Amino acid sequence: MKLNDFLTEQWMNDYEGRAVYNMTDTCVQPLSLRELTAMDEDHLLERTILDYGVITGDEKLKEEILRLYHTGSTANIATTHGCLAANEMVMNTFLEPGDTVVTFVPGYQQFTDIPASLGCRVITVSLREENGWMPDEKELEAAFHSPVKMVILNNPANPTGRFFDEAFLEKLTGYCRPEKTYILSDEIYRGKDPDEISVSDLYEYGISTSGLAKMFSLAGLRMGWIKASEEIIHQLNVRRDYTFISTGPLADTLSCIALRNQDYLIERSRKIISADKQVYTEWLKKEKHASLVMPEKGTVGFLRYEGNIPSRDLALQLLDEHGVFFVPGSCFGCENHLRIGFTRDPEMVTEGLRFLSEKLAEINC
Amino acid sequence: MKLNDFLTEQWMNDYEGRAVYNMTDTCVQPLSLRELTAMDEDHLLERTILDYGVITGDEKLKEEILRLYHTGSTANIATTHGCLAANEMVMNTFLEPGDTVVTFVPGYQQFTDIPASLGCRVITVSLREENGWMPDEKELEAAFHSPVKMVILNNPANPTGRFFDEAFLEKLTGYCRPEKTYILSDEIYRGKDPDEISVSDLYEYGISTSGLAKMFSLAGLRMGWIKASEEIIHQLNVRRDYTFISTGPLADTLSCIALRNQDYLIERSRKIISADKQVYTEWLKKEKHASLVMPEKGTVGFLRYEGNIPSRDLALQLLDEHGVFFVPGSCFGCENHLRIGFTRDPEMVTEGLRFLSEKLAEINC
Repeated sequence: MKLNDFLTEQWMNDYEGRAVYNMTDTCVQPLSLRELTAMDEDHLLERTILDYGVITGDEKLKEEILRLYHTGSTANIATTHGCLAANEMVMNTFLEPGDTVVTFVPGYQQFTDIPASLGCRVITVSLREENGWMPDEKELEAAFHSPVKMVILNNPANPTGRFFDEAFLEKLTGYCRPEKTYILSDEIYRGKDPDEISVSDLYEYGISTSGLAKMFSLAGLRMGWIKASEEIIHQLNVRRDYTFISTGPLADTLSCIALRNQDYLIERSRKIISADKQVYTEWLKKEKHASLVMPEKGTVGFLRYEGNIPSRDLALQLLDEHGVFFVPGSCFGCENHLRIGFTRDPEMVTEGLRFLSEKLAEINC
Repeated sequence: MKLNDFLTEQWMNDYEGRAVYNMTDTCVQPLSLRELTAMDEDHLLERTILDYGVITGDEKLKEEILRLYHTGSTANIATTHGCLAANEMVMNTFLEPGDTVVTFVPGYQQFTDIPASLGCRVITVSLREENGWMPDEKELEAAFHSPVKMVILNNPANPTGRFFDEAFLEKLTGYCRPEKTYILSDEIYRGKDPDEISVSDLYEYGISTSGLAKMFSLAGLRMGWIKASEEIIHQLNVRRDYTFISTGPLADTLSCIALRNQDYLIERSRKIISADKQVYTEWLKKEKHASLVMPEKGTVGFLRYEGNIPSRDLALQLLDEHGVFFVPGSCFGCENHLRIGFTRDPEMVTEGLRFLSEKLAEINC
């Protein structure tokens, strides 16, 4: 089944290695293995045997994952190799050729291109910057004029950083309930704020995916999961036997250790994200050629710039001249934007923005 | 895309936990994490950062993987989350609805059911026990009367243990070359014997998959890989961006440590496999109700028994009465057989076979 290049990921693969000032990473500053194993107060690693482990995921790990949600039991959780694989498994399990899928743009390319490769009809609803990156209500409603099999979004969203609150999700489930439309909500950028509701906590056909890469700074464990109804989890576990069997006791155990320290890790991330947002807020006060819908949640945002230069050229010039690394809006089909991350040392971000200001002044002179 | 239950994996999931005498495990006695980390003489783990790592796989790891083959460079390797995921990625990348796939039965259910779920026409060629689990030449040739997109096999095979030697592979590539038919060869049961040729070493459209689960006793790392032409690897890496991004620096590093000790691990496995085969050879001399095409390579075999009892019933009775655990032939669509593994303590295997003999005497009395 043919797929085009995944533009954002290809960009990262091709250029990230040259970054001196990485302004676009979506993962909060990663932990080292040594930092993580130091948290193993229960000595779980000493007893780890490298067999397949529990095929459907370690029960202790699932208990820790469950603490991130308001409802359900461990029977509502399936573990996967990262959140991306979780999304793909959900799509492969529940979508058939000819099904209609609704998703949002600018958004994550997987959400349009995997369903299209499966022979689905994909309806894209625009997120409007002038509306704080929310969709137009009429456009959203119109997408449901014929039956929809699955809505796919991420919440908070990438690249816009938009957080879809409970009121919006209630409206969306209102459109979905009559046809039992699945809502696949990639919640990898979700934290633990009380208002950060998961779709799996409020809708029977809601399928929440997440993982340890972004807010927990542990992309290297490649741990993701799915939370959904027991019936949905059962169907996903049938597919698991054909695709990857288990996540394995090593990743399960280390992820369990991480999530036993989830409050510490989330607080560590909150501090870094807040500091970086503060840098941007101060910078934007003085920078007349850029604007930003400042995200409430998550680690990413979508910076708008003025000037007659394609985003790809701007990003490449900044990288070549100063090692300042952004993902250009063109990777999301949206010019005059750069995808930014609030994930790194604020002093580095400050430096990077100084180079961006110089470049924007040059372009707009 | 709908899939039926994966019979072998479901059987393992449902019953393996009750095994006292595990007679069927396909993985040589697993290592502990402690045993593996003790091999880290180069102190690689101390420097491991838990970010995404090298997206297309750590170069040091690929160099170690390459030592298992006779041709190619690290550009011919892609790493995946286990061999099963490698197989699925190959099928998803190169198969389209309407394509014809040729595979062998009894065999591994993934090879028939994933292509069928993708809308492919699947031709199965029988492996004939009376022919040492080789296919009939005319039946094999007939499968290529119209164009075939992909041949899928494992070598050595599961459950039969059949090893397809270079002469057979040359014959197969002869059928495949005219239409540039891919050969996907799951070589997870391959060791390092000089005659254990990989299809990727002798055919331009040969795609070899493997991993650390079986011969290297490290299923828990969930490390697999693909070896193929650079053009094929490039296409697989496009899909990688949509499916799992990277295998991550933790699994990459631990796998590198393991494969720096590949000769030790293979020798460890060889000793266990040989000892278990010896137990079976001695047992078969006295057991008139069972026979076995003794496999030359790999860790599994397909034991034939006499008696008017469905394999599922026999396997369940042995498990219920004595904790003796086999996978029944019914999971492979082949009655009067049990799938066996040469992977465990020979004393345990001896004990388990004693119970099997008792049961076969009872059935055939």
